[in-house]
Amino acid sequence: MAKLYEEMSAEELKAERKALKKRYDAFKARGLNLDMSRGKPGADQLDLSTGIYDIKYYVADGVDVRNYGMMDGIPSCKKLFGDLMGVEAKNVIVGPNASLTLMFDYISQCYTHGTGGNTPWCKLPEVKFLCPVPGYDRHFTILEHFGIKMINIEMKEDGPDMDAIEEYIKDESVKGMFCVPKYSNPQGITYSDDVVRRIASMKPAAKDFRIIWDDAYCVHDLVEDGDKLLNIFDILPEYDNEDMVIEVCSTSKITFPGAGVSAIIASDKNIAEIKKRLQAQTISYDKMNQHRHVQFFGNVDGILEHMKKHAAILKPKFDIVLKHLDEELSGRGIATWFDPKGGYFISLDVMEGCAKRVGELCKEAGVTLTTVGATYPYGIDPKNSNIRIAPSFPPVEELDVAAELLGICVRLACIEKLMANN
Amino acid sequence: MAKLYEEMSAEELKAERKALKKRYDAFKARGLNLDMSRGKPGADQLDLSTGIYDIKYYVADGVDVRNYGMMDGIPSCKKLFGDLMGVEAKNVIVGPNASLTLMFDYISQCYTHGTGGNTPWCKLPEVKFLCPVPGYDRHFTILEHFGIKMINIEMKEDGPDMDAIEEYIKDESVKGMFCVPKYSNPQGITYSDDVVRRIASMKPAAKDFRIIWDDAYCVHDLVEDGDKLLNIFDILPEYDNEDMVIEVCSTSKITFPGAGVSAIIASDKNIAEIKKRLQAQTISYDKMNQHRHVQFFGNVDGILEHMKKHAAILKPKFDIVLKHLDEELSGRGIATWFDPKGGYFISLDVMEGCAKRVGELCKEAGVTLTTVGATYPYGIDPKNSNIRIAPSFPPVEELDVAAELLGICVRLACIEKLMANN
Repeated sequence: MAKLYEEMSAEELKAERKALKKRYDAFKARGLNLDMSRGKPGADQLDLSTGIYDIKYYVADGVDVRNYGMMDGIPSCKKLFGDLMGVEAKNVIVGPNASLTLMFDYISQCYTHGTGGNTPWCKLPEVKFLCPVPGYDRHFTILEHFGIKMINIEMKEDGPDMDAIEEYIKDESVKGMFCVPKYSNPQGITYSDDVVRRIASMKPAAKDFRIIWDDAYCVHDLVEDGDKLLNIFDILPEYDNEDMVIEVCSTSKITFPGAGVSAIIASDKNIAEIKKRLQAQTISYDKMNQHRHVQFFGNVDGILEHMKKHAAILKPKFDIVLKHLDEELSGRGIATWFDPKGGYFISLDVMEGCAKRVGELCKEAGVTLTTVGATYPYGIDPKNSNIRIAPSFPPVEELDVAAELLGICVRLACIEKLMANN
Repeated sequence: MAKLYEEMSAEELKAERKALKKRYDAFKARGLNLDMSRGKPGADQLDLSTGIYDIKYYVADGVDVRNYGMMDGIPSCKKLFGDLMGVEAKNVIVGPNASLTLMFDYISQCYTHGTGGNTPWCKLPEVKFLCPVPGYDRHFTILEHFGIKMINIEMKEDGPDMDAIEEYIKDESVKGMFCVPKYSNPQGITYSDDVVRRIASMKPAAKDFRIIWDDAYCVHDLVEDGDKLLNIFDILPEYDNEDMVIEVCSTSKITFPGAGVSAIIASDKNIAEIKKRLQAQTISYDKMNQHRHVQFFGNVDGILEHMKKHAAILKPKFDIVLKHLDEELSGRGIATWFDPKGGYFISLDVMEGCAKRVGELCKEAGVTLTTVGATYPYGIDPKNSNIRIAPSFPPVEELDVAAELLGICVRLACIEKLMANN
């Protein structure tokens, strides 16, 4: 039975540190080079989709998809994404290989042209966004690029702190929020129905308040009974808020990160606005790739079946990490984490002030974690506590080593802190 | 021997019109539905590249191209574009399926962030661009989208009117110029070495003056002895002007308009600036498609060989149009046109004030031309004279009909005008 570190005497801590240091040094001596930093699928996951390249005919929806035209996507692909996300095809624009680009371009459009007839954000003295934390670093990078001030919103177990949000949106310069509502990056939290409804019913002071609803993990369950996310587009009309949400998704983690298809889902009015920009920006995205995806999956059931194969590869990877976290850290009062039912990450919160040191100790022993702080705006975790673990890319054998070492490093860092405090 | 229309008597014009009207009505009775409006390759051209989809292995430059990473393109594809454009690979970023998006995004970046440390264009009271006319409508659409004021610059036979340009660039609010330096759209003019050198040596008042050098038709010869364009990047350093030019190209009309690969070529400084934006906008463009293109062509010679097959398909299409233009219009003093050695268009200048009427007459008889005026900023051809003919998409048999009809329509429209003047 583990003992709480805070209740240990100086002597006990010293002994504990000595034992851990011995284990740590043994790992270090192995000259490891392991990477748990990014949510990259493994090669075995990518192999699941290579059949997509057997598709070689070129006529879809009566059109030669190799040629110009069909700016907002081929109809069959718009329908597939519409079915997947529970919206009509007319509310879908099929995008490039990354939903990140769709989000960047949307924020850029609000910045240069505004939305809903309101002042372009570049003409305003200050624009602020709400950022549930910990969150996805690339969302923060987009906001930082446009000089948009980021405000941290704490994540609760059922979604972001709605009380705080409802307070902040009284400020007209708060123009939006980034959300990963299902299997959030990095915690793997799915927003509860209550939270989704509270978001859908918000009345921000800013008429051009926009929520980027990044549904990156919409079908990325690790278990049979995955989380269910309320479809926000079903309830937005109840609150006359259809224009407030811009949803994106992609096949980056369904088929290929480097060669998938993305989509943006929005109200009629927002779709019309986005199309107006697209008419200047492109003639069409890659329709051949859209066509391949439609032919490969056929329909939503095809996608769901496919995702089970991903889960079969990913679940053991999550399990081995969680096993080591449990063995090394449970009962010591120095760390908490979630056991997510889907997504790509495990989020580990260690004793305040210790996360960076954990990153250093891991690095020294040859294990790379996501840069500590990256899960927060401006790279600053105010508590220096959050560590994002990405178990998808390394094989199980490597995770077995890396996760045990991570546990040791967390324990060592916390002991260092406790001893320094005494 | 044809007679100049301006020298015809009223009687002669009347007789001419009667004869032409008879021919026109005969065409009209056929219920035609022909389209010479857009520079789309024909399906037989697209078939030249379908072998690209036989490439199914995924490791390029030692990296799994299906996965994340390599933001600026896989090294082998950067090299291929570098070799093609006569620059080092480090000065190339491989882009999405359309260079149009690269141009839009670059102007957008100048608008939101400025370039070279200068004020972002969105913060300036007025930004102007020089537009050689006739030109490419989609360039104008980008500028109009960002509220950039367009100034017409007349095209001469060896490129844009440099005297006018050198005058305009004394104005600091003139921030750039769009050029299609080889086989210009629509005239098929290649800038002479003198013009390229004069452009490269310009000293605009605006330090952030940027030339978008859209080399869309860089290898798109119709004949063996195609035009040669001086490589502007070879001479820019002589004038300390490396940062003034942003070049783009793509395989839209080499492989597939809807599924090709594009590239942007720029100085070290500009590349660094663009990459800074890209780090927020994407993780990478579609690397699988880059890889397929590299494997399919191998090297620049592979591309050049491939382009000969395109020429073999396109040349007869240009020839049949030119034949009809010659038969219908030569010697009448009512129209001029170029016989381009490459590119995708024939540009026809008819008697001032007649182009729109020609478009109407063609439309009425079932032949669609590029919207008259589209080759000018804001869709306004001040002389109402220019007609862009796009012969690439329709089969030769259809062009044979459409081009004869076009000739008749030009003659009819001019007669109408001359008779109205009397």
